[in-house]
Amino acid sequence: MSFRIEKDTMGEVQVPADKYWGAQTERSRNNFKIGPAASMPKEIIEGFAYLKKAAAFANHELGVLSIEKRDAIGTVCDEILAGKLDDQFPLVIWQTGSGTQSNMNVNEVVANRAQVLAGGKIGEGEPALKANDDVNKSQSSNDTFPTGMHIAAYKAVVEVTIPGVEKLRDTLQRKSEEFMNVVKIGRTHLMDATPLTLGQELSGYVAQLNHGLKALKNTLAHLSELALGGTAVGTGLNTPEGYDVVVAKYIAEFTGLPFVTAPNKFEALAAHDAIVETHGALKQLAVSLNKIANDIRMLASGPRSGIGEILIPENEPGSSIMPGKVNPTQCEALTMVAAQVMGNDVAITIGGTQGHYELNVFKPLMAANFLQSARLIGDACVSFEEHCAVGIEPNYARIKELVDNSLMLVTALNTKIGYYKAAEIAQTAHKNNSTLKETAIALGYVTAEQFDEWVKPEDMVGSLK
Amino acid sequence: MSFRIEKDTMGEVQVPADKYWGAQTERSRNNFKIGPAASMPKEIIEGFAYLKKAAAFANHELGVLSIEKRDAIGTVCDEILAGKLDDQFPLVIWQTGSGTQSNMNVNEVVANRAQVLAGGKIGEGEPALKANDDVNKSQSSNDTFPTGMHIAAYKAVVEVTIPGVEKLRDTLQRKSEEFMNVVKIGRTHLMDATPLTLGQELSGYVAQLNHGLKALKNTLAHLSELALGGTAVGTGLNTPEGYDVVVAKYIAEFTGLPFVTAPNKFEALAAHDAIVETHGALKQLAVSLNKIANDIRMLASGPRSGIGEILIPENEPGSSIMPGKVNPTQCEALTMVAAQVMGNDVAITIGGTQGHYELNVFKPLMAANFLQSARLIGDACVSFEEHCAVGIEPNYARIKELVDNSLMLVTALNTKIGYYKAAEIAQTAHKNNSTLKETAIALGYVTAEQFDEWVKPEDMVGSLK
Amino acid sequence: MSFRIEKDTMGEVQVPADKYWGAQTERSRNNFKIGPAASMPKEIIEGFAYLKKAAAFANHELGVLSIEKRDAIGTVCDEILAGKLDDQFPLVIWQTGSGTQSNMNVNEVVANRAQVLAGGKIGEGEPALKANDDVNKSQSSNDTFPTGMHIAAYKAVVEVTIPGVEKLRDTLQRKSEEFMNVVKIGRTHLMDATPLTLGQELSGYVAQLNHGLKALKNTLAHLSELALGGTAVGTGLNTPEGYDVVVAKYIAEFTGLPFVTAPNKFEALAAHDAIVETHGALKQLAVSLNKIANDIRMLASGPRSGIGEILIPENEPGSSIMPGKVNPTQCEALTMVAAQVMGNDVAITIGGTQGHYELNVFKPLMAANFLQSARLIGDACVSFEEHCAVGIEPNYARIKELVDNSLMLVTALNTKIGYYKAAEIAQTAHKNNSTLKETAIALGYVTAEQFDEWVKPEDMVGSLK
Amino acid sequence: MSFRIEKDTMGEVQVPADKYWGAQTERSRNNFKIGPAASMPKEIIEGFAYLKKAAAFANHELGVLSIEKRDAIGTVCDEILAGKLDDQFPLVIWQTGSGTQSNMNVNEVVANRAQVLAGGKIGEGEPALKANDDVNKSQSSNDTFPTGMHIAAYKAVVEVTIPGVEKLRDTLQRKSEEFMNVVKIGRTHLMDATPLTLGQELSGYVAQLNHGLKALKNTLAHLSELALGGTAVGTGLNTPEGYDVVVAKYIAEFTGLPFVTAPNKFEALAAHDAIVETHGALKQLAVSLNKIANDIRMLASGPRSGIGEILIPENEPGSSIMPGKVNPTQCEALTMVAAQVMGNDVAITIGGTQGHYELNVFKPLMAANFLQSARLIGDACVSFEEHCAVGIEPNYARIKELVDNSLMLVTALNTKIGYYKAAEIAQTAHKNNSTLKETAIALGYVTAEQFDEWVKPEDMVGSLK
Repeated sequence: MSFRIEKDTMGEVQVPADKYWGAQTERSRNNFKIGPAASMPKEIIEGFAYLKKAAAFANHELGVLSIEKRDAIGTVCDEILAGKLDDQFPLVIWQTGSGTQSNMNVNEVVANRAQVLAGGKIGEGEPALKANDDVNKSQSSNDTFPTGMHIAAYKAVVEVTIPGVEKLRDTLQRKSEEFMNVVKIGRTHLMDATPLTLGQELSGYVAQLNHGLKALKNTLAHLSELALGGTAVGTGLNTPEGYDVVVAKYIAEFTGLPFVTAPNKFEALAAHDAIVETHGALKQLAVSLNKIANDIRMLASGPRSGIGEILIPENEPGSSIMPGKVNPTQCEALTMVAAQVMGNDVAITIGGTQGHYELNVFKPLMAANFLQSARLIGDACVSFEEHCAVGIEPNYARIKELVDNSLMLVTALNTKIGYYKAAEIAQTAHKNNSTLKETAIALGYVTAEQFDEWVKPEDMVGSLK
Repeated sequence: MSFRIEKDTMGEVQVPADKYWGAQTERSRNNFKIGPAASMPKEIIEGFAYLKKAAAFANHELGVLSIEKRDAIGTVCDEILAGKLDDQFPLVIWQTGSGTQSNMNVNEVVANRAQVLAGGKIGEGEPALKANDDVNKSQSSNDTFPTGMHIAAYKAVVEVTIPGVEKLRDTLQRKSEEFMNVVKIGRTHLMDATPLTLGQELSGYVAQLNHGLKALKNTLAHLSELALGGTAVGTGLNTPEGYDVVVAKYIAEFTGLPFVTAPNKFEALAAHDAIVETHGALKQLAVSLNKIANDIRMLASGPRSGIGEILIPENEPGSSIMPGKVNPTQCEALTMVAAQVMGNDVAITIGGTQGHYELNVFKPLMAANFLQSARLIGDACVSFEEHCAVGIEPNYARIKELVDNSLMLVTALNTKIGYYKAAEIAQTAHKNNSTLKETAIALGYVTAEQFDEWVKPEDMVGSLK
Repeated sequence: MSFRIEKDTMGEVQVPADKYWGAQTERSRNNFKIGPAASMPKEIIEGFAYLKKAAAFANHELGVLSIEKRDAIGTVCDEILAGKLDDQFPLVIWQTGSGTQSNMNVNEVVANRAQVLAGGKIGEGEPALKANDDVNKSQSSNDTFPTGMHIAAYKAVVEVTIPGVEKLRDTLQRKSEEFMNVVKIGRTHLMDATPLTLGQELSGYVAQLNHGLKALKNTLAHLSELALGGTAVGTGLNTPEGYDVVVAKYIAEFTGLPFVTAPNKFEALAAHDAIVETHGALKQLAVSLNKIANDIRMLASGPRSGIGEILIPENEPGSSIMPGKVNPTQCEALTMVAAQVMGNDVAITIGGTQGHYELNVFKPLMAANFLQSARLIGDACVSFEEHCAVGIEPNYARIKELVDNSLMLVTALNTKIGYYKAAEIAQTAHKNNSTLKETAIALGYVTAEQFDEWVKPEDMVGSLK
Repeated sequence: MSFRIEKDTMGEVQVPADKYWGAQTERSRNNFKIGPAASMPKEIIEGFAYLKKAAAFANHELGVLSIEKRDAIGTVCDEILAGKLDDQFPLVIWQTGSGTQSNMNVNEVVANRAQVLAGGKIGEGEPALKANDDVNKSQSSNDTFPTGMHIAAYKAVVEVTIPGVEKLRDTLQRKSEEFMNVVKIGRTHLMDATPLTLGQELSGYVAQLNHGLKALKNTLAHLSELALGGTAVGTGLNTPEGYDVVVAKYIAEFTGLPFVTAPNKFEALAAHDAIVETHGALKQLAVSLNKIANDIRMLASGPRSGIGEILIPENEPGSSIMPGKVNPTQCEALTMVAAQVMGNDVAITIGGTQGHYELNVFKPLMAANFLQSARLIGDACVSFEEHCAVGIEPNYARIKELVDNSLMLVTALNTKIGYYKAAEIAQTAHKNNSTLKETAIALGYVTAEQFDEWVKPEDMVGSLK
């Protein structure tokens, strides 16, 4: 392996000769051997590419950067966004909590790559761009990293999370409509209760996801606020007048997303409550998805010794030892994802509490956990939809058997004979292992005709929209 | 102690003769000796009083309950709301997860108290009201408890949490404006950074609280949805046509809050994502408050060996052994509250994931944790405002001493002489323990006149709105 | 209400005339109106009573306190332990994070009560004891509060948690032995699997609780270390030589528990990892109990549309609307307790991370959450044992029906005909809704005799100890 | 890309021709596109390699597997352990919660690789080994995955976590001894307190880590218990007599670690409390490390406007905008790791609660979070030691300046003149911005000689061991 010498304000550093990164990246790479290499999320690097390009355009528009430098920066940023420089970002999450060296990593790669694109050699001759003075112009790590974080987070939510959840929601909605008349036993406390329809049951899941989506979207306004323009401590030192608004405009243009400059830059650097807020909504979705997936696997349990009211797709042989076994594996993946998101929420919460003075230095942690959650929820919903939800079917015979046997149909008699007599019927039938009808008649509380007229499961499920 | 005999569908139970509650309450009281007695939050009982009265009015309006019974129920509910029956609700949080016996506790107290108010004796003669058939008419525990929970939660948020946070926010806003021109050193990574003003620093806290309040208010629509009318499993069995809308209207009227009937009752019984959602916003506020309180105690630390840039009120002798010591006790209470709310968020999250089929049976847990958080945040903000925030004053001498000495003022030279030379100045001054100005001149990078013109802390803080 | 004037180093304060507390208590009472009054756990006050008495004895033994003062202090501490002064401790959890005013509350009550016991009047004449100089001699809040916390925590664990868990463990152990030969279907992924016995299933719960108890006991050594003798910052300033060891000896003697002086007082003041550690074990028990309670309610679900393999006691009418319904309410209380403990663990974890320099100021938060968890687990295990576990009975008919129908008995054929042919049998039987035996014979893989010899549920459950 | 056809009990599947995996792996790979590919931790695959080899040896020893098959399995397992087949394990964490397809992935790779090593072609002729019947002999996913998980977890703890923590502990211990006589100001509530030495302060950190290491080691006995031999539901179906003990013996031999067979296999499959337990200790270490790293960055804060009592190594330029800035980046990485571990603890806790009947299906989630925590703590401690702790030095001048100025030295006068007069001195000196000595004399409470004799910081720090 061959090396070249790079310099920063602390002195010289040996850097792999075939890499574009410079001294600061290399220092961080050597100083933080924690967990797998290059763990800084790719989405964050992309966020940086958007913002570096936008900063160059804003700096040019405001007269502090030449058009040549603007375009040189823009060209390399486009290469980053096209995935051409993926092996140039070796740093880990577990570095400085401001992500300073990841900012410098991008600055260095842009400067050195531009040097090569301009026909030069890295470290030789007059540089096309200086990492700190040009690429980082009007910026600080303290405002770029949170900006990259918001860009990455917003994109992940609207491009992965929301479409995934909506896809699952749509399928559940369709299934709910399809099975709206399939009357089945209800269960509360895991115990037999009054009937409802399978479609109604599924409609509850749809309502959960709709509420979750709404909650998630409610948080996006905060997430759309960008720190860029605050520079070191939020005051905007070393930025041209009007820069924060202009740079946000360019970011919005380049990403196609409604980003705006944060009205208060001090908050935007020192706290990451927007990440806390949006992740709170992701956690809410995790809660909902856990409930849904857990219900579905219980309803599908069996095939002979479980509840067995629904059938779900058989995707893999379920056991390496029990032949012919099939398991609700998508439900399991989804509930594991839910647990992960709930854990991530605590990591993000703790990171969020720990800002000190003008800066929160838990940025990479918060970003990494957020992006994992956003992606996992989106991916897992798609997987669950494609390999499970889409194939949910009622087990009609089993559903009928159970609803017909239920003792809780007795509830329909409350308004006819009162709660106490109705209870006596249910308890007696239970004790004698007999039917409600036999028992009700034997106790003399209703006639057979009355029973048949009053106790109809299909009349007990309310309105079916 | 004397007893009377009460009956329910399971048989007879001895109940203290001087209490209005009946058999089911007594069973639960005996079966759940977990933690302190009567721990079910009072706010939940009040929520029940509102909804029982509303149900009576709706039942009457819809023709299924006489006006006499309606008024008998309403009268006792008003007594509960007036706090006259506080010793009649002995049950604990750690009972059935549907809160069934707390619902029955209210039903029994209303029925028996009405009997007494009507001049009767409990358990003798024809009852004025039957607990299950009249007081609980058109209701189930499964829809009443979540309704009571939403009423209690909504009220706590708008009556305690929001006013408390706003009170603190207003004071911080006023202080921010007052100190907007007090230039001080900034700190990032806990290390000296470029200057900002004390007012700017406080403005970040105000922005945090404003975002938190907005996030909290965003969740209230979901929380305003009431389960009542869903009865046992969400189908509305045993309710008159239109009941759900009418009963929500009465609850809105009696509470003065914008409650509506939940569009999907299955979700409203089986999941409590609204509680998860709103508590997520409470947790976000806890995160913000932790940051603010922690900053304030660090800024006020000293008196001689700390940061000491601000002064806060001296409220109690700080030490039983160190004479004359004063501590940031309000900050400590507030950060402890923040930690509690973050813990409560996990309890609520876990409770929220565990709905099974048609019912979530973690209701009392979720309610108790929510109400504690809502109250603690509100109370702690008021306490912090009154005994700390209101008295924050700059320590002008200390602030000036620190900002004048700072090496990070060198940042102002970046745009004049470049980042690298500026760094050399700072590093040399640090090594030699000299001033920036001396060093900058000695290194030959600027003249004394240039330094004085370019390096002015008051010009480095951006616009002061 | 009448008042008297009390003084401390900050000046005069009005105190209710009928209370023993003094100026500092009153200041804190007025400055911290957060949550319900007097929320500081009673166990902490008791811990203080033990340690104040022990400190008096140690101070006397070491020659710095007269025997008269020692006995005056000891007498009031005994009154506190006897519960005679319960209304003298009005402070809340949400005060200073060192609990300084709760320490002073005890100091003040002891001093003033001693004055009265000596025939004097509070605030008049020469005081029998001075709060700071006598009652608090050789102490600081910083070492007393953690000492009180450890005493309270240790006592709660050994007096409430462990006995409660052991009681439940013993009953499950007895049930496990009783049902060791009841062969039933196993379930993995909620799906039918190979058989085991009910006794084996319960033995897993017993093993969980045994591991949990062992884990809990492993933590007690750390919890037995007392901070007392560290005084303000851990150096033991203002204590007589040897005091820390002597005072721990007295605490051990008075409590009957094996307390020792902490080898490192700096850790004992600045961190509360012992609380984190022991609560980690409480959380592990919560995890185990959640699993156990959840299994039991699923196994008992029905009566007609669930699993129904076991019967549990019927304790309360289960529904205010569904007559005759009975629910697994003890399981619900226990799983809610588990969720609370898991939330408390996060609150304690966060509190534990936040020590600064020589002191952790999240002490009351940590203490309150810990004590709640310790008590809830103990109480809930007792409740669950008495009202549920003790009454668990197999539903023999249902168990037999399910095991006889199971397709997973085919696993016994793996070693005879291979996994692939066995799978074909199971899949075919499932598709045709036929029995394994019919299908196996029809496919020509085994004879009827072979099937009967090889596929015996009772031979598939391994050794039954 | 070319493919071959593989079969399992569900039918045919196309598999990449150049891979050893088979039908089941491919199904899972296609069915679970959640998060990054191949995310199942490598350590788990290694755990499987150990156990598959051990199972082959045990099966052979017990007469149910030929020596040729044993050695064929062993050879491929050794290749896996040597890292030669790393690209053969494409599955993700977010699959079935039993990890069944990861078990089958190993079975398939071992069988097909053995076929090739034997000179055959995959899928042609008589297979050297059958995946289910030979490689998986006497095993189920349900006992192999938890076994692989315990092997991986145990190894990570003893090979990465403990050495990393011990390395840091040793350096802190050395520094503590080195600075044992450096008297400095203490701080409680972030406020000036009585003095201690820097060595004493560091000794508290050492004590924390020692307690944490002890707590961690306490949990290893539970983690050393292996599920293997339980097969499908814990009964050991389809294993030869004595197999569980023998296979654990081989695992212990191959890994060099003290693994034993779990006394209760039902617990070992249905619950993963051992993972919960050990991770609880990892979380405790995270709590301790957070405290330590946070203290160190506060003590090192400055250089001119912070505390500045210690100096730490300067590792990277600290700011892309502020020249010459240096930050406590190792502290930041370590506290981010701590937050991650605390989040992981919640994910593991939730996963741990959710076992159903005979199986916990959150295994991959629990394993992945555990292994991340174990590695992060170990790596981060090494990084922190090498790049921060090793270079901690006192800033003697600053330390002396602060301790000499402190008002809390007055505490030494308590035992001479009483707490109240001492407080008056401190308060007066504070108000007048004068020294303690001047004030004490002016107030007439002590003479200059007395002051000099009684108030010596170096006499206030207790014994220095």
